[in-house]
Amino acid sequence: MVRLAPEELRRAARDARAAYRSGHVEPTSGVAPGFTQANLVAVPADWAFDLLLFAQRNPQPCPVLDVLEVGQVESALAPGSDARTDLPAYRVFRDGRVVEEVRDATPYWDGLVALLIGCSFTFETPLLEAGIPVRHQELDRNVPMYRTDRACAPAGRLRGDLGVSMRPVPADRVADAVAITGRFPAVHGAPVHVGDPAELGISSLDSPDFGDPPVVRDGEVPVFWACGVTPQAAVLASRPPFAITHAPGHMFVTDVLDREYDTGLPS
Amino acid sequence: MVRLAPEELRRAARDARAAYRSGHVEPTSGVAPGFTQANLVAVPADWAFDLLLFAQRNPQPCPVLDVLEVGQVESALAPGSDARTDLPAYRVFRDGRVVEEVRDATPYWDGLVALLIGCSFTFETPLLEAGIPVRHQELDRNVPMYRTDRACAPAGRLRGDLGVSMRPVPADRVADAVAITGRFPAVHGAPVHVGDPAELGISSLDSPDFGDPPVVRDGEVPVFWACGVTPQAAVLASRPPFAITHAPGHMFVTDVLDREYDTGLPS
Repeated sequence: MVRLAPEELRRAARDARAAYRSGHVEPTSGVAPGFTQANLVAVPADWAFDLLLFAQRNPQPCPVLDVLEVGQVESALAPGSDARTDLPAYRVFRDGRVVEEVRDATPYWDGLVALLIGCSFTFETPLLEAGIPVRHQELDRNVPMYRTDRACAPAGRLRGDLGVSMRPVPADRVADAVAITGRFPAVHGAPVHVGDPAELGISSLDSPDFGDPPVVRDGEVPVFWACGVTPQAAVLASRPPFAITHAPGHMFVTDVLDREYDTGLPS
Repeated sequence: MVRLAPEELRRAARDARAAYRSGHVEPTSGVAPGFTQANLVAVPADWAFDLLLFAQRNPQPCPVLDVLEVGQVESALAPGSDARTDLPAYRVFRDGRVVEEVRDATPYWDGLVALLIGCSFTFETPLLEAGIPVRHQELDRNVPMYRTDRACAPAGRLRGDLGVSMRPVPADRVADAVAITGRFPAVHGAPVHVGDPAELGISSLDSPDFGDPPVVRDGEVPVFWACGVTPQAAVLASRPPFAITHAPGHMFVTDVLDREYDTGLPS
């Protein structure tokens, strides 16, 4: 059982959720530093086994932090939370197409099972603490995310390719970034790829599929981590009749400290 | 993706499965040393989400190594295997009661989803290699297993108490046994309890709920590990209309070496 942060430390996380509940919209990278963030994907109950199995078979892009059963809206990771309202923005999918982006998923929630999946924003604080720059935070942008041509293990009716986030890292800090993020397998862990984006089937770094374009400086190497947009790619590819996800980069902020998911050791 | 053992090393595991397929029955502790063993639990497809969620919420007793979808009988952990026939013995449950014990589950398999769950037999080889005795192997018996009074996290319609296996360990080797088994979270990891069985609600060590009675010698301490009989306890408590499990102690022998699940580090 994951421990919550001490009550007196949780204000930043609670305040962020309250702001989003009342309509504020922003990417959550850098919000409530030190607190774990999560991706959301919700599907009708008769797709829930396929989705949970997809996550079980693809634990690096889809590490499950919590599951909300039908009728459940409060995550054990955030007492008092409501997964229908406490993210800044949601995407609504019908038959594998995004049909709407909304701030409140309440009207759509009946009969859904939701997975909360670890998010790499979680290990950005430890990266920063080690003096490794996190460019999209510096620029106050969303992280760039890409589809790749690497197939995930299929599960039931769900299939799809791996999605990744990218952070440019100075060449002499890549090893440190690998070691630090590898300590956090529950939030995607070590990079899946370092260097040439073409090897992942990414034709242009400047045109991410989700989020904002990156700024890569001289002497920096693009480093790719498995990303929680992967279930969205699976929803796009596999066309369940209905699904709701977070809007990319707009996460669920939990009351759990990053360090709860720090194994202390490279994975 | 877990790697299989090199082809030339797999004979012991393949031979064991072939023997069980042709009708041989024995507890599998000590069989094919160095190879990972797994518990089996199979339920009708409309209970599969509940079961997978139960496992996700209770990873120490229920670490999922593989999932066989409806119509699938071959595990990726053992090419050429057939989960319906390759375990020494199975239990058939109806409405939460054991109605039969069989050597061949083929007649019952249609429409089932099966989970293969890590088994603590897997870390017995590393214990032995460290000079820590494994008493039930010495005595050629099945390991003693017990129900406890510790509730697992419920999931959907499934609930139940933690099941444990017990191995007596010399007092001066308990720390080593903890460190060694802690390296293997995928096969239950470190002990959940060391010492007084009454604390777990076990009234008599001499009367295990599953397996054979133990022999605890002077200077030895009873050490309890989370056990893959836990899903059986959940089936007993939650009464799905139908289920099949391995017979306690009679496991699925895979082609995966123990060391694939060795994180190298205490969990």
